[in-house]
Amino acid sequence: MKGSRGVTLSGTLKDGVHRLDIRIYYEDTDHSGLVYHANYLKFCERGRSDMLRLAGIHHTELAEQGLGFVVRRMTCDFRAPARIDDVINVETRLKQARTARFVLGQQVLLQDKVLFAAEVMVALIDGNGRPQRMPASLMQKISES
Amino acid sequence: MKGSRGVTLSGTLKDGVHRLDIRIYYEDTDHSGLVYHANYLKFCERGRSDMLRLAGIHHTELAEQGLGFVVRRMTCDFRAPARIDDVINVETRLKQARTARFVLGQQVLLQDKVLFAAEVMVALIDGNGRPQRMPASLMQKISES
Amino acid sequence: MKGSRGVTLSGTLKDGVHRLDIRIYYEDTDHSGLVYHANYLKFCERGRSDMLRLAGIHHTELAEQGLGFVVRRMTCDFRAPARIDDVINVETRLKQARTARFVLGQQVLLQDKVLFAAEVMVALIDGNGRPQRMPASLMQKISES
Amino acid sequence: MKGSRGVTLSGTLKDGVHRLDIRIYYEDTDHSGLVYHANYLKFCERGRSDMLRLAGIHHTELAEQGLGFVVRRMTCDFRAPARIDDVINVETRLKQARTARFVLGQQVLLQDKVLFAAEVMVALIDGNGRPQRMPASLMQKISES
Repeated sequence: MKGSRGVTLSGTLKDGVHRLDIRIYYEDTDHSGLVYHANYLKFCERGRSDMLRLAGIHHTELAEQGLGFVVRRMTCDFRAPARIDDVINVETRLKQARTARFVLGQQVLLQDKVLFAAEVMVALIDGNGRPQRMPASLMQKISES
Repeated sequence: MKGSRGVTLSGTLKDGVHRLDIRIYYEDTDHSGLVYHANYLKFCERGRSDMLRLAGIHHTELAEQGLGFVVRRMTCDFRAPARIDDVINVETRLKQARTARFVLGQQVLLQDKVLFAAEVMVALIDGNGRPQRMPASLMQKISES
Repeated sequence: MKGSRGVTLSGTLKDGVHRLDIRIYYEDTDHSGLVYHANYLKFCERGRSDMLRLAGIHHTELAEQGLGFVVRRMTCDFRAPARIDDVINVETRLKQARTARFVLGQQVLLQDKVLFAAEVMVALIDGNGRPQRMPASLMQKISES
Repeated sequence: MKGSRGVTLSGTLKDGVHRLDIRIYYEDTDHSGLVYHANYLKFCERGRSDMLRLAGIHHTELAEQGLGFVVRRMTCDFRAPARIDDVINVETRLKQARTARFVLGQQVLLQDKVLFAAEVMVALIDGNGRPQRMPASLMQKISES
């Protein structure tokens, strides 16, 4: 658990679990009064980005090498809704790491209640969209996170 | 296939398949130069809304009865990316209709190439989020669409 | 007024006025039951993109020359709300064209009622964000649109 | 300046100035590699919501009285772009408070550089969209914030 201000904005990474608090604003809700379903994918992407950030992996550095992560597959369970002003918590865990992809388990919680659960397969690609083997240094950072 | 102008904006519904053309704008893309992954869920929701519309089912009428559809589960395959200025086509098919939920198959295509494929389980709920049996008239409209 | 299917998706450009029909979906609304205010800027951007498209100016061609348009200033009047299922119409007019920028007047209407009105100053920039003079061919396309 | 964790997520309110740190994620950027212009309005709305929250004014409580705030007019200067991974800061100041509306000055900064500046006129409306006088208690909370 790290305590400096910049790190707080990026959540915490401890024992392999990344946790990020997110406030629900007007932009996240829809006509039904609840959070719009696709926005849970945005919250999960914020969680993944910040988990990578705390593990020392930065989108911009990857991009300089012509690399980037993409979501290949995602299963999404929408269990209960969040509402405006709620503070939700996104949990991200590494479930599996292979040479060309990894699988993450993610949950969105409100206090102790799971609102949304997802399994996300992420791949590394080059600028032409071709799958790339993860560099050993990257694998290590991900596995140790 | 219906030809009036309003219906064209809502796509076409023929032999149980709804098709909707969608233009990719700046707002749909991200830093990578490709469409942001969560936005395929938006495109699919537009397809479902317009399929229901052409089947004679309107969100506002359901809302007056205190009812609404929610996505319960979604599996998403992200196969290839769309880019700015592309015109993609969203295909929606009913795969299964039960008393309290239905399952749709959806694809996003660029010309003949499938970019994204999803299976979507949708449920009918009341204002308190409790699952509701679909009224017979609603089941009929959905099944005949 | 052009009639082919692709052009319909891009709206119509006639006597210097571009008009684009847009359906309001769940994603456009918020908790209040109305369209989220920032989304009117998205609708206007779609109108500008399609006006340029019909005038023969394409984002991807500009990007190949290292050029792109950016919004520099925008005044926004939010007069009345749109709601889910509404079909709104975005009108875009060129008000002023100079060597390094142009000014557009835009309105979002529901039937004959103006919901939103904006004046938008757009500039041409290079990849480093520096303002660029518009090539004569570009000026001509814009002025003749 | 308040220090508890929940308040940190809502930024700080001191000497009439609200400040909120926001991370730029993939979802905020577009094809150009920069933040999509309409998203600065989202960031400003987050700032206004959190300023009100710290002043003791909650959307949900207002909604129970059938009231809500809406943006009536906004002038936007887009001066310089933010990019992915940036941490921007939204500053919000009350400039004028009248019985039926108030005017806020807002800025988005990256370190000391102003990226975006806006003046926002906000009104209080009832459920039918009719302007309402601000209750004295609300005026006081806003003025003292």
